[in-house]
Amino acid sequence: MKKSIFKKLRSIVGRKYCTDSETDLICYSYDATNLRYMPEVVVFPERMEEVAAIMRLATEERFPVIPRGAGTGMTGGALAIKGGVVLVLTRMNRILRTDADNMVAEVEPGVITGNFQKVVEAKGLFYPPDPSSAAYSTIGGNVAECAGGARAVKYGVTKDYVLGLSVVLPTGDCIHTGVETTKGVVGYDMTRLMVGSEGTLGVITKIVLRLLPLPETVCTMTAVFDHIEDAARAVSGIIRSGIIPRTLEYMDQSAIRCAESYLNIGLPVDAGAMLLIETDGPKEMAEMEISKLCALCLSYRARSVHKAKTPKEALDLWKARKAISPALFKLNPDKINEDIVVPRSKVPDLVKKIDDLRNKTGLTIVSFGHAGDGNIHFNIMLDKSKTSELKKANVAVETLFKYTVELGGTISGEHGVGITKLPFIRLEMSEAEIDLMRRIKKAFDPNNILNPGKIFLHA
Amino acid sequence: MKKSIFKKLRSIVGRKYCTDSETDLICYSYDATNLRYMPEVVVFPERMEEVAAIMRLATEERFPVIPRGAGTGMTGGALAIKGGVVLVLTRMNRILRTDADNMVAEVEPGVITGNFQKVVEAKGLFYPPDPSSAAYSTIGGNVAECAGGARAVKYGVTKDYVLGLSVVLPTGDCIHTGVETTKGVVGYDMTRLMVGSEGTLGVITKIVLRLLPLPETVCTMTAVFDHIEDAARAVSGIIRSGIIPRTLEYMDQSAIRCAESYLNIGLPVDAGAMLLIETDGPKEMAEMEISKLCALCLSYRARSVHKAKTPKEALDLWKARKAISPALFKLNPDKINEDIVVPRSKVPDLVKKIDDLRNKTGLTIVSFGHAGDGNIHFNIMLDKSKTSELKKANVAVETLFKYTVELGGTISGEHGVGITKLPFIRLEMSEAEIDLMRRIKKAFDPNNILNPGKIFLHA
Repeated sequence: MKKSIFKKLRSIVGRKYCTDSETDLICYSYDATNLRYMPEVVVFPERMEEVAAIMRLATEERFPVIPRGAGTGMTGGALAIKGGVVLVLTRMNRILRTDADNMVAEVEPGVITGNFQKVVEAKGLFYPPDPSSAAYSTIGGNVAECAGGARAVKYGVTKDYVLGLSVVLPTGDCIHTGVETTKGVVGYDMTRLMVGSEGTLGVITKIVLRLLPLPETVCTMTAVFDHIEDAARAVSGIIRSGIIPRTLEYMDQSAIRCAESYLNIGLPVDAGAMLLIETDGPKEMAEMEISKLCALCLSYRARSVHKAKTPKEALDLWKARKAISPALFKLNPDKINEDIVVPRSKVPDLVKKIDDLRNKTGLTIVSFGHAGDGNIHFNIMLDKSKTSELKKANVAVETLFKYTVELGGTISGEHGVGITKLPFIRLEMSEAEIDLMRRIKKAFDPNNILNPGKIFLHA
Repeated sequence: MKKSIFKKLRSIVGRKYCTDSETDLICYSYDATNLRYMPEVVVFPERMEEVAAIMRLATEERFPVIPRGAGTGMTGGALAIKGGVVLVLTRMNRILRTDADNMVAEVEPGVITGNFQKVVEAKGLFYPPDPSSAAYSTIGGNVAECAGGARAVKYGVTKDYVLGLSVVLPTGDCIHTGVETTKGVVGYDMTRLMVGSEGTLGVITKIVLRLLPLPETVCTMTAVFDHIEDAARAVSGIIRSGIIPRTLEYMDQSAIRCAESYLNIGLPVDAGAMLLIETDGPKEMAEMEISKLCALCLSYRARSVHKAKTPKEALDLWKARKAISPALFKLNPDKINEDIVVPRSKVPDLVKKIDDLRNKTGLTIVSFGHAGDGNIHFNIMLDKSKTSELKKANVAVETLFKYTVELGGTISGEHGVGITKLPFIRLEMSEAEIDLMRRIKKAFDPNNILNPGKIFLHA
């Protein structure tokens, strides 16, 4: 990168917030995929005007710009695969307003999702989307990836809560999309086109979010099953019952064992599967529903059910589910982490397929996730340095992807495409559809400078 | 239009389903705006392949194509303002499947919304979006306009229920957008870009819809207020209470009087306003909530409240609200019908402004609508042949639009832009935003043949 460009960037954000030192570049060269691509410069703007000036310069000088939140993405969305400038949004981290009368809030993209949730909950409001990374990921990143989370079965995902955005286009123009209100049909829905566009269409500088009233009570239970097929059928039974649980999570045997090896709290390591279920709402209603679901799980041959009687007990029930991700690394140093979705009624088929693959390949495959919406996380734990193991794992991933699409599902429910799933999008998208995406991309970014090489290949 | 093109169209859909007779052209020259533009041909395809062939021909021969459902749109979306071929989707009217296990359905665009609702409700399922036109408008039209309705306050609008689409692009290519599942983030959200695009980006040939379990019970009440400000404050109180009503409708005094002149059932014609409220869900819950809302309305100085004790009583309570639209024409032969949205907390301000305008201009302005989401329908009843009255009315519309935007609202909550609101979009959208829409349009429709002249001007 030309020294003159570095100087111009430095004059836009200030000396302190523009760096090309090797240490800094290394820090911003990777994300949660652990893949590494060195950027040439890292900048930390504070205001929309600085972002706009950076994008104008990038358009003039044709260098890549990669927007970045907390760098917790799982598919390489924030990686500088073609070098260029990583544009970190974390200094833009103010909650601009919360409006209880109109149930909206306005935030900057660098706000940590978990912090935002605490702030609004203290006011009796509720921002439901809760990706597992909420304690450290940013709203801006969540919006760019359309993050999901365990509460999606009842409350939907990030896209269902974004009312409007301020966006800096790749050319430097600033636009507002959407409305303050929950209804609005003037012009194309560019808000929803931006959500999940993985930082390839514009840089988000402000987000208007829809809020709900905070539910009065949350009830939590677990159900342990001898056979995973019974657990899968119980999931279908719950959906058909008319009760919409706040969360409906499951863990297979390998996930339970993995969590137990980490926690040592006496989890049922011989069980086929565990369900973790929450209901929420007015006290009598939430309690009535959780009791009904206990009975329902027992009717589907759950070996045991356990209802939390206190908030502490509820946290304990969640421990196992939350321990899986960190615990996985006790099995093997590397992880291939996928988040497919199948129609709920097909969850038993998918679970069986994972089981078959596990037996056939000998790979360590742990499966758990959001059973309520068919969003299964399967993780292959391996040692990537062992070439034969890596080969087997890649074949297993492709097999599961194809089977997922065959079942009417999708290869990504929450993590996006980025670079890691880019080779597989043709399992789901036709040439005509990919070509249309290219034309939309070109309408926003004629010079292909904003996060190039993500989701699909340029031509 | 060249005779050779007519012959080709006829060979695509069959002789019976292709017409250029004057009588037929007149029938398809207008919609609910009552504006009239004669097309040159009207075709009635039955299958996606026919639609694709028509679009390929239109691209080759460069004639406009205007997709049309039931023609009930309120902003001119289905009008052939540049001549060309009106493409009527009503023969494509099959409900292809309903899946209670996965809570999805797949329909063709010509399915009547109200019929679809009845079919799924008979199976214990629920498709909430209920535009007032549901008894005769089509799902395809609803999707193209992102139709709303009274239940939006609790259940959202059409866009919240569309999981995926089959679309014929203006060039004739066929694409699928979205997923079968409630979560999916592969590629850009082209489903949501299509919803509300008013037939300018593609012709929708199949829709995958999300369903909910049918609520067990619906409870209905009305509340009569001496002063409309009290009613508006009660609306805010209801939203803040944490109870999310199924519907929360209001009628101002002129709307009540209008309905009474039509129905003669003893409506309170001296009241300032009436609220019509529903709750739904499990029986005890819905009943408890409606009782709470009765008490709440009384605490906001409602003169009286009335809870329906039977389904028939509930229908009676709705009579007044449903009578307004037809009743309006007793006042004057012409109607200017707008559907602005303001943040809920600003509803009192807007209502006052309408009152002021009514007093200042002497115009007959009736206001009613979806108070729960700030979506106010104001109708100016006039005699368009009286030029001074028409002038005054147009000034009043512009005044209210500007005030709406000033209050942080939008000039269209449900009806779209079409041609009737096209002159006003600059109140809400900047040149950069309009230009971006043009580039998106160009990405889909390089030759500008699909529903040209709608939403924004081409260049």
